[in-house]
Amino acid sequence: MKTNKSKKNVERDRSLETPKGVRDFLPEQKILREQIVDVLKKVFERYGFNPIETPALEMLKTLVKETDSATDAFNEIYRLEDQGGRKLALKYDQTVPFGRVVAQNPQLGTPFKRYQIDRSWRDGPIKLGRYREFWQCDVDIAGASSMIADAEYLAIVTDVFKEFEIKVEFRINNRKLVEGVLKYAGIPKKQWMAATIIIDKLDKIGDSGVLDEARQKGINDDAMVKVLDILSQKGTNLQILKQIESFVDDDLVSEAISELRQVLKYGAAFGAKNIKLVPSLARGLSYYTGTIFETYVVGSPVKSSVVGGGRFDNMIGDFVGKNVTVPAVGLSFGLDVIYDTLVSMKRVVPNKTVVKVFVVPLKTEVQCIKIVTELRNAGINADIDLIGRSISKNLQYANKLDIPYVILAGQSELKKGKLNLKDMKSGKEQKLTIQQIIKKLK
Amino acid sequence: MKTNKSKKNVERDRSLETPKGVRDFLPEQKILREQIVDVLKKVFERYGFNPIETPALEMLKTLVKETDSATDAFNEIYRLEDQGGRKLALKYDQTVPFGRVVAQNPQLGTPFKRYQIDRSWRDGPIKLGRYREFWQCDVDIAGASSMIADAEYLAIVTDVFKEFEIKVEFRINNRKLVEGVLKYAGIPKKQWMAATIIIDKLDKIGDSGVLDEARQKGINDDAMVKVLDILSQKGTNLQILKQIESFVDDDLVSEAISELRQVLKYGAAFGAKNIKLVPSLARGLSYYTGTIFETYVVGSPVKSSVVGGGRFDNMIGDFVGKNVTVPAVGLSFGLDVIYDTLVSMKRVVPNKTVVKVFVVPLKTEVQCIKIVTELRNAGINADIDLIGRSISKNLQYANKLDIPYVILAGQSELKKGKLNLKDMKSGKEQKLTIQQIIKKLK
Repeated sequence: MKTNKSKKNVERDRSLETPKGVRDFLPEQKILREQIVDVLKKVFERYGFNPIETPALEMLKTLVKETDSATDAFNEIYRLEDQGGRKLALKYDQTVPFGRVVAQNPQLGTPFKRYQIDRSWRDGPIKLGRYREFWQCDVDIAGASSMIADAEYLAIVTDVFKEFEIKVEFRINNRKLVEGVLKYAGIPKKQWMAATIIIDKLDKIGDSGVLDEARQKGINDDAMVKVLDILSQKGTNLQILKQIESFVDDDLVSEAISELRQVLKYGAAFGAKNIKLVPSLARGLSYYTGTIFETYVVGSPVKSSVVGGGRFDNMIGDFVGKNVTVPAVGLSFGLDVIYDTLVSMKRVVPNKTVVKVFVVPLKTEVQCIKIVTELRNAGINADIDLIGRSISKNLQYANKLDIPYVILAGQSELKKGKLNLKDMKSGKEQKLTIQQIIKKLK
Repeated sequence: MKTNKSKKNVERDRSLETPKGVRDFLPEQKILREQIVDVLKKVFERYGFNPIETPALEMLKTLVKETDSATDAFNEIYRLEDQGGRKLALKYDQTVPFGRVVAQNPQLGTPFKRYQIDRSWRDGPIKLGRYREFWQCDVDIAGASSMIADAEYLAIVTDVFKEFEIKVEFRINNRKLVEGVLKYAGIPKKQWMAATIIIDKLDKIGDSGVLDEARQKGINDDAMVKVLDILSQKGTNLQILKQIESFVDDDLVSEAISELRQVLKYGAAFGAKNIKLVPSLARGLSYYTGTIFETYVVGSPVKSSVVGGGRFDNMIGDFVGKNVTVPAVGLSFGLDVIYDTLVSMKRVVPNKTVVKVFVVPLKTEVQCIKIVTELRNAGINADIDLIGRSISKNLQYANKLDIPYVILAGQSELKKGKLNLKDMKSGKEQKLTIQQIIKKLK
């Protein structure tokens, strides 16, 4: 570029500012993000999930129910209008559009297993690791109430991270377990959601923190003490279930325990390991109705859950018709947190370029075009100097981008049919025919 | 799903309506779209282009210059505001954000070769093949003025379509050729853009159509006759260039002819064929400054250009600073038109699912989970009945989705260690061990 001026003092015809909470991904990030996405796709497809795409733009009234007005999602939706004055919105997740698609396309049949790797937008507060435009990698099943479906996700997550040579640990629970215990302790139904969200923080804020927050929400203290007592059982997964079963005689709790036992049984059949039942686990979203999952990477400096989700048997029905139930269960893989985990654990090294070899013509453009074409035809990612720079400038450029090999091709080399292949890491040069170079680089 | 009611009479909590001009892609479309994208990526990377991503949301003032107010792009931009009242917009192409990224990241060095496969949004009229939300597959180079860069695109396009076993035909020209001839004919500079856009339609509306439209725009008739005369030369590419050269003595025209000769020479070195110089070709966008490309598929019922682009040496400079020039050239592959071409030429058959084999447990869930896990571990896309349906219902389901194989596994089969593999196309059944099945399906 023909400019060296500092950005601030330059007059320009267009602004360089970008919106808050959005990001550019340059090659060094984007190449690795694509590699992660490719692994996710491969594993999702191996499990019989098919890709779909829904638009970024939805009708506002598709995304929000009238009763939604107080929720975060409602307040964080980017709204806009088209030429015709229609009220539109940018989707804030992949799950609600999935519900719409299922309801609109009964011809798809059930169960319908789909994955969607796409952006979502939320005009919310920007914190570390939270953006206004971000990617979600969602796998969901509609139309399957069997716990085999829930258990299958344990295998999917295990397989995804096996591809990165990483071990994971699951934390699971069932929403009905928490609700059943709240019911058993005598907490009224209208307080269940608030209580559930507070209980989910037990690990972070401890018993006293939970009781404080519950008090502030007007939840009965004695009842809450009873709830915490029941949900704090320790032992193996099956011991915990047995203990809770022996304390609490309640339909919801029995249902939850039976479902959890099935998930554990089928999960073991799928070969999933490190599954930890955490009776206080609840997750913040209101639409979960059964199994709840979180996933942590063993030995990772990144402490957040890398994959989370659960069963949401009531949401898709909202699109199909009043009082219709479509059982559904799914997970969302966080692309940003997986990226950070892989990089921080040094499981991958981000590349600055996909280019494997760079051809430098020395007044031999036409011959070098033929050389680079041969390399490309052999399936090698190859590039060629397009601007006639000096050898040293070209080597600098290759070095800057970490391109592993450079071919130097002057008239004399071309005449002899041997090219100079420079290994940029070792600095070593070898004289090879183009066929030898192809063999070496493949 | 537990509903059979017709959509119209159903009361529901959420709307099924979608915005005008946007689309869902169900597996049957999305699987093939992904396959096309994978081919594009592979070829782009083979040519040394690196992926980048820019956000959907840009500042409005990044996308539009103050002088842009009369253009289509300006009128078709979806505008919105964030919480902080900032004026945002959805990007309407990948090229303007590319310009911003290049200007913001001098550390990337030049030439900077990038590809970006992403959505764009234009709130414009909806016609056949025109949508408000659509995908663009863009490959651009910043910082290379050599015609090697322009010629390389001929090879990229050829290689992409070679992957689909399809032959293409190029139409090329140079914006300076048209402008130089307009200048030579005495048409004032302020009419060049209008005249160029009219001349571009020569193939469709003929000489008289061009002259009519030019008259309506107040362009001198005699001058326009002269222009058409010069731009209607016939013959081989080199003959046409020679003829125009012999008629017109003008700097711009000489420059265009020299550049076109280089593109043809380097294009031949890259192995590109079927390049047709069309002196009236201009393309509608105002930002082109040199080489112009269009691509047509030989023998396709789809008559639109599948890839188009050209050189735009002035646009990126707008972001860098006043009076700065950053040479740039690029192409945009149209995903929709490539999809339609491949399907209409029967070069590909869209699949309804990625699933290769479907496992049906006959009261043998846990054993079948192990079988499907073995198949998946072997890299085979496999699925399993999740809802305990009857054999006939499961076969119907597999048939509906065109899943090629079904495994039926009852207790007796499992005891003998042989499974029933049903070929859904032929209807033939074979008793095989799991290892034999894996070998057969791989």
